[in-house]
Amino acid sequence: MTYNIAVVGATGAVGTQMLKMLEESILPINNLKLLASKCSAGKTLTFKGKGIKVEETTENSFDGIDIALFSAGGSTSAKFAPFAVAAGAVVVDNTSFYRQHPQVPLVVPEVNDEALEQHQGIISCPNCSTIQMMVALEPIRQQWGLERVIVSTYQAVSGAGQSAINETIHQLSQVINDQINPKDVKAEILPSSEDKKHYPIAFNALAQIDVFTDNDYTYEEMKMTKETKKIMGDEQLKVSATCVRIPVISSHSESVYIETKEIAEITAVKDAISKFPGAILEDDPSKQVYPQAVNAVGKKETFVGRVRKDLDQENGIHLWVVSDNLLKGAAWNSVQIAEELHKRNLVRPTTENIFLA
Amino acid sequence: MTYNIAVVGATGAVGTQMLKMLEESILPINNLKLLASKCSAGKTLTFKGKGIKVEETTENSFDGIDIALFSAGGSTSAKFAPFAVAAGAVVVDNTSFYRQHPQVPLVVPEVNDEALEQHQGIISCPNCSTIQMMVALEPIRQQWGLERVIVSTYQAVSGAGQSAINETIHQLSQVINDQINPKDVKAEILPSSEDKKHYPIAFNALAQIDVFTDNDYTYEEMKMTKETKKIMGDEQLKVSATCVRIPVISSHSESVYIETKEIAEITAVKDAISKFPGAILEDDPSKQVYPQAVNAVGKKETFVGRVRKDLDQENGIHLWVVSDNLLKGAAWNSVQIAEELHKRNLVRPTTENIFLA
Repeated sequence: MTYNIAVVGATGAVGTQMLKMLEESILPINNLKLLASKCSAGKTLTFKGKGIKVEETTENSFDGIDIALFSAGGSTSAKFAPFAVAAGAVVVDNTSFYRQHPQVPLVVPEVNDEALEQHQGIISCPNCSTIQMMVALEPIRQQWGLERVIVSTYQAVSGAGQSAINETIHQLSQVINDQINPKDVKAEILPSSEDKKHYPIAFNALAQIDVFTDNDYTYEEMKMTKETKKIMGDEQLKVSATCVRIPVISSHSESVYIETKEIAEITAVKDAISKFPGAILEDDPSKQVYPQAVNAVGKKETFVGRVRKDLDQENGIHLWVVSDNLLKGAAWNSVQIAEELHKRNLVRPTTENIFLA
Repeated sequence: MTYNIAVVGATGAVGTQMLKMLEESILPINNLKLLASKCSAGKTLTFKGKGIKVEETTENSFDGIDIALFSAGGSTSAKFAPFAVAAGAVVVDNTSFYRQHPQVPLVVPEVNDEALEQHQGIISCPNCSTIQMMVALEPIRQQWGLERVIVSTYQAVSGAGQSAINETIHQLSQVINDQINPKDVKAEILPSSEDKKHYPIAFNALAQIDVFTDNDYTYEEMKMTKETKKIMGDEQLKVSATCVRIPVISSHSESVYIETKEIAEITAVKDAISKFPGAILEDDPSKQVYPQAVNAVGKKETFVGRVRKDLDQENGIHLWVVSDNLLKGAAWNSVQIAEELHKRNLVRPTTENIFLA
């Protein structure tokens, strides 16, 4: 059994990593179709040493496709994912569009792969900042339960796409090479290309990712709250986030504070993390060992360190969680979902397409 | 009445800002003496348009000095501050050396200037990351009380001195101009010049500032805990910190979560902050208004925004606090203490020098 796979958004920051992850994947691939917007169509990308021409995504792009990996923005998924399902494909969607749909599983394979069994043609890949936190917290939740989470993120610019990477490099160059004041560099993308105002990211920390919602939290922050509850299947779990962009190209870092239901010993917590699939414990203050963004780039795992008790709260624990946002945070988690669908024999057309309007 | 003022560590990142703050100060200055280590002695710095030669700090440097501003590292303060007091000067020490001394007031003028009345020759200026948090939280504490604080910092490299600034710029240049992988750049200073291993800061976030203590928190983190309790005069106040260095030259940002004793309305909290001296409320999500490091550089105030209720905890509030770490976090707070000593007529020799061994 082999699969015909389509990657939608193949030329983007996540799409190019998707190709790498598919090259390394155990998935038996028959044919790979690369799709993108009209302006990127015609480009050639390399897969396993072979050039593949990128085609424009249309409603008819998915004939004969078994697995469609979407990573081209929410509006593209909204427009084309139902047609992929209609054509008999299983969609793994890396955008936020379907994540809160009650009939769409939201999956981090290490945490809730059994949710895949209920899929009806579309599976959502959670937001990058949520995924790595799930890998770090699930081993703790399993043994001691989770009461609440307070997280402050240190997010890389690649989460906002290739144009944000280019903008960051250009701004840094303006400051370093042309002696321009950091507050006077040109900003056109960050904090959110969809918002009105744009601010410098070079030598700055922007406490806005995505646009603001009505409750004065950003969508990025609300994603962390809602997605954590859905993935962990616990609507009572308290989660509040502050999401911040910093001048790092790839790998998100997170300062996570949790309160467990049962009091946990730190050595046991470290032990649980170190044994959890996809998590790597990097924690030895005596040797200055803790996770670092620059070291996580290109790795599929989530790195956890600085694990320590709160100074006052008996059931409080602090952690520092780092992972490559383009890999575990996006491309690898999507391909990993596809692999899990394959292992569970769940790559099959749906009988009823609930997503076509 | 005029004062003879000495600045110890005049050539450093904080020292040079100290001169600027003195230039703008209301203090009646008779003579300014610039002191530094042997290797920086002989340099000339400009004060109010006039060149002043930097001298080496010795035990005899303080004859005739009324106010000595120390900012040359803990060991220099330990060695020379007692001699400054013996010579009749009042010392404002910007290092951590005397901060926890029971007879040394630890002062953020907006918060606890009355503590100056008890000084016995030495007043400590708190750590940069603590000071700005105090300015943001004191208006809240005054009206609703404070139960606990959880803070994650986004600290600028200038807090580690001029050599850390140079290292950051050099590393960024290596990556941007010479295409060196961020994890392969040369690192000799950060995270702490006093620790064994050094890591890149360019395109990275380092969850270590200062060295580690026995409880797996860093000294920087423990400073935030202990100094907050001392300044606010509340040993019961719960404070846990995660201190992180990011590639920003100046201005620290902080994601602060607090729980108040009494439940507070967010509009009233914002109002209290906006009326508090030294604090500026920058908070309008609908217009993308929130504090930013690049905008705080060169300003004396502390900027507060993203003020919002925790999603679950009735007495929980999140804030984003930004200030220039070299100014309010160091040079300005020190000069501000000197101004307050002047206003309160507290610039006077001590009768008994408790600091001389």
